[in-house]
Amino acid sequence: MYDLSGYGMNEIVISSVQNPRVKAVLLLQQKSAERKRTGLFVVEGRRELTHCIEMGLEIKEVYVCREIAKTTERWNNMWEVTRDVYEKIAYRGSTEGIVAVVKSQERRLNDLRLSRNPLIMVVERVEKPGNLGAILRSADAAGADAVIVCDALTDLWNPNLIRSSIGAVFTVPCVVCESNECIAFLKERGIQILTAQLQDSRLYYDTDMRCGTAIVMGTESTGLTEVWRQEADAHIRIPMLGRLDSLNVSVSAAILLYEAVRQRERAKED
Amino acid sequence: MYDLSGYGMNEIVISSVQNPRVKAVLLLQQKSAERKRTGLFVVEGRRELTHCIEMGLEIKEVYVCREIAKTTERWNNMWEVTRDVYEKIAYRGSTEGIVAVVKSQERRLNDLRLSRNPLIMVVERVEKPGNLGAILRSADAAGADAVIVCDALTDLWNPNLIRSSIGAVFTVPCVVCESNECIAFLKERGIQILTAQLQDSRLYYDTDMRCGTAIVMGTESTGLTEVWRQEADAHIRIPMLGRLDSLNVSVSAAILLYEAVRQRERAKED
Repeated sequence: MYDLSGYGMNEIVISSVQNPRVKAVLLLQQKSAERKRTGLFVVEGRRELTHCIEMGLEIKEVYVCREIAKTTERWNNMWEVTRDVYEKIAYRGSTEGIVAVVKSQERRLNDLRLSRNPLIMVVERVEKPGNLGAILRSADAAGADAVIVCDALTDLWNPNLIRSSIGAVFTVPCVVCESNECIAFLKERGIQILTAQLQDSRLYYDTDMRCGTAIVMGTESTGLTEVWRQEADAHIRIPMLGRLDSLNVSVSAAILLYEAVRQRERAKED
Repeated sequence: MYDLSGYGMNEIVISSVQNPRVKAVLLLQQKSAERKRTGLFVVEGRRELTHCIEMGLEIKEVYVCREIAKTTERWNNMWEVTRDVYEKIAYRGSTEGIVAVVKSQERRLNDLRLSRNPLIMVVERVEKPGNLGAILRSADAAGADAVIVCDALTDLWNPNLIRSSIGAVFTVPCVVCESNECIAFLKERGIQILTAQLQDSRLYYDTDMRCGTAIVMGTESTGLTEVWRQEADAHIRIPMLGRLDSLNVSVSAAILLYEAVRQRERAKED
């Protein structure tokens, strides 16, 4: 269904990278502050766009390169762009020929609908958007109830985060908040807090994760802050049996999430 | 110890990106075929270089940018380079100011020294060097005996692989070979073959990994080839509880490796 009302202009193919719309999309791709100011972000690819729609997000504008997309489908507020323009606005380079500007939605802790024994991933100050995206992808696979990002250094709508999450940023309920709020939220609901840290900790697989559990990870460089360590019900660690003494933060998150999955699925069998 | 014999030339600071040595280093960074032809590769950063030396690899040339490295140390066959030249030859961009050309060493299956119940990671035709590097990093942490790369699509000395392995390519014994050779090697030694695949499989944590075990992963796009599926002792899968039905191949590898670690460490406790 194509709504022509007032959109005569989008019958024209945008061929200049100097076009103000193109510049606006670029700014949204590149600047977190611009995403914050406008409440908009850019999504790329058909699957990701479908996830946005399923999540109930409002699609504001769609840019299609027919040559790449090989489709004649029409969208509301759609503009065709040339291959040159598309390659400029597409963060991933040669993708599916479709890019959209989407209205972001902020979710709060109290919006989360949790299962009876929730499994929650908490990340404090993770630095790299790509790592946060990878954590979201694993959280989706592990069926986590939510991912809570505390004292965030990146916004959820960073193009690299969206890309590395392969869309999990739309399928897993995500909340951005302060550490203190998050701790209060978990404690009120009787959800145990397990902090991943090397010092003063027990092996992760010796810890019962069948009850409501929040697994908390810090930055790769400095780990968790003191407030989390103090409020934790247990400190857990992944044994390091090699020479380098280091795992990627998103890999660590996946190992811990899947230990919870293993324990819970095993409990169902018994 | 600084060997001056015949290396008067390296008293001069290389300042041109047109310098033949600079061009040779660049070619080694960029071209797998050049690495194969010469048996040389490029390593960047002090820690990685230390791992090369510990592994017994021969350091052929060292390029140092004093301005970045902030050191007066001297190496055999060392050349100083300007910041411009350094930034050209350094794959990672702004690193520690040290880049070296190293002689690669091919390891064969029969060179592997395995423990009594070895844990081996086998990857068949993994496409992205970054993923293979991440698998090596996790294999190091899990204390795996070896990583075997079958029907490789990338060489082990790809700069992106070295980088994402954070040096594990030097600490974990790695062999590149054909799938058939690898299968024969594992069967001769009574090492069970567990293939990660979704179809016709059991849950990974319902599989005993305490005996000698090889975990085999295929490409992200097409999975494992038929020969591995047929020769497997068991097919194992990671349950997918989310909406996206997908885990990163290096994350999957880490979850499976750490299940073996868990079972083995638990068995020690009993």
